[in-house]
Amino acid sequence: MKRKRLPVPQYLAGIASSSAVVLSQAITIIESNKPEDQVLASEIMQQLSTIKKENTALRIGITGVPGVGKSTFIDTFGSFLTHQGLKIAILSIDPSSQKTKGSILGDKTRMENLARDKNAYIRPSPSGTTLGGVAHKTHETILLCEAAGFDCVIVETVGVGQSETMVKDMVDFFLLLMLPGGGDELQGVKRGIMEMADAIAINKSDGDQIKTARKAKVNYQNAMHLFPPNLNGWVPPVLLCSAIEKTGITEIWESIKKFEGKMIQNKFLESNRQSQNEIWFEQLLQYKLMEKLYKAPELHTKITETKKSFFQDKINVPTAVNKILKEWQHFDIKKGS
Amino acid sequence: MKRKRLPVPQYLAGIASSSAVVLSQAITIIESNKPEDQVLASEIMQQLSTIKKENTALRIGITGVPGVGKSTFIDTFGSFLTHQGLKIAILSIDPSSQKTKGSILGDKTRMENLARDKNAYIRPSPSGTTLGGVAHKTHETILLCEAAGFDCVIVETVGVGQSETMVKDMVDFFLLLMLPGGGDELQGVKRGIMEMADAIAINKSDGDQIKTARKAKVNYQNAMHLFPPNLNGWVPPVLLCSAIEKTGITEIWESIKKFEGKMIQNKFLESNRQSQNEIWFEQLLQYKLMEKLYKAPELHTKITETKKSFFQDKINVPTAVNKILKEWQHFDIKKGS
Repeated sequence: MKRKRLPVPQYLAGIASSSAVVLSQAITIIESNKPEDQVLASEIMQQLSTIKKENTALRIGITGVPGVGKSTFIDTFGSFLTHQGLKIAILSIDPSSQKTKGSILGDKTRMENLARDKNAYIRPSPSGTTLGGVAHKTHETILLCEAAGFDCVIVETVGVGQSETMVKDMVDFFLLLMLPGGGDELQGVKRGIMEMADAIAINKSDGDQIKTARKAKVNYQNAMHLFPPNLNGWVPPVLLCSAIEKTGITEIWESIKKFEGKMIQNKFLESNRQSQNEIWFEQLLQYKLMEKLYKAPELHTKITETKKSFFQDKINVPTAVNKILKEWQHFDIKKGS
Repeated sequence: MKRKRLPVPQYLAGIASSSAVVLSQAITIIESNKPEDQVLASEIMQQLSTIKKENTALRIGITGVPGVGKSTFIDTFGSFLTHQGLKIAILSIDPSSQKTKGSILGDKTRMENLARDKNAYIRPSPSGTTLGGVAHKTHETILLCEAAGFDCVIVETVGVGQSETMVKDMVDFFLLLMLPGGGDELQGVKRGIMEMADAIAINKSDGDQIKTARKAKVNYQNAMHLFPPNLNGWVPPVLLCSAIEKTGITEIWESIKKFEGKMIQNKFLESNRQSQNEIWFEQLLQYKLMEKLYKAPELHTKITETKKSFFQDKINVPTAVNKILKEWQHFDIKKGS
């Protein structure tokens, strides 16, 4: 299926005028693996800085285990923001997502209110085989959304594996959703995640669960004190909320605004983005180099064969790496690609 | 200072005959950053598989926060092993080490008994600027030690930062040393580390501290049950020991032997090494590619400049990465290197 592509200036003009349709098309090009789309994507990214922006968007990461009510929370929280007059974009990182299997519809139905809200833009996770690849594309999409003038970009992660670290590395504020519960139970959340959080919100703090939630709050607060203090001087609060009853949402937003104010004042917001950019630069460079290497068809087979030979102890890793690098150099010079 | 180098077959013969002197020289070549040494190192690694080995060494990683008594523990534990007739090598990963400042002497004096033990070989951490570089060299050194016929290779890590993950990825068994204490205090250990441990040993369980240590043991055992079960079916035990009073050492070794027996039986030892090799292959390939790129002097300046321009929002990361890759290709083709 060949899709029509526009000239670069039309994408830029569309993004600059906040057209959701053009923004979506541009994101599709960013996410595409076709060589001609990748050239187009580079050109869009290169000229993106020519778009004048009023202000930068605040980037918020949201995570939590399945069952914590993330979709409902984002639906309620996002609607709260749009009612304040803010324009918001919701992106997600989920390496297991298969867009072709209808998750666009899935993403829209799981956030009913936002799906009908003209000030909210929902974009499901790009599909991909590696988490790294998926994360890089989401990171680029954040830049497109910022250029399109959103006030707030929310990046949601599925709450399992390594995706949290990647989201943490691309947002200003990282919110961890938890369930009311004993507090000494870990609820399946990987322990390192708690250390990353700028705030913990205990969702479903409603009905019978309010008492348990209050207890959990104390436990989490105690747990948070065990960590070394953040370099930015921020003490992550533990808050109670109910996405269904729409309680505690204002407090969460106030906390985020307080964080933003402090971090602008102490210049952490700026220096954090700078170091995030440096990390991204290194990672993307590595990723692209490896991609270049794996894409060379002759090498791909060789790499697969090489990996098998570790099994029989035929070759050790440093020797295998040298072999591949030599092959690549030879291939690279021969083809001049 | 120019050091004399031997022809490759002499290094191989020396390693095969377990000469500590030749092994040390070979490791020095592995650790060297001189281009001529790197060529020599590749040749040694390439021919290493020609050395016939009786058996493979068991690789044990040991970590714990500063103050936990790691050196004394390794001294006692290592001496216990050599008294069982085993030959052991002790390597360490410490990216902050400055070998030129006398840490060889430091490593030998902090393990008094092993330093005088002819069946123990102690090699301090290679110096280096990046943890990745240091880790790759230690990993190669493990292979040299195995070829030299050691029964057991102990890799010690300083217990801070990311070095634990790297050590975990190159050993069969990972031992975490803890101090007697409340159990709900984290003792500065990053939370993810506990999940990596194949056993926890509470050191300094002696004198007044025995009671506290027993309490801590129960707390850690409870904490360990919160984690999802290991894929290999192993439940990490929590043990008490005192390196100074030489108690609990037999139990730790028995635990390790039990682990080894089970993991040979269920083939996890083998499949774990295979996947470790695959991870190492990817990481070393990335590392070498990046090294190649950063070594090109013209690019080095460009990369530094590029990073600075993120500050002024002059360029975004994907554009910067494309620019560097294009420069590199140009440079690479021009110089043919």
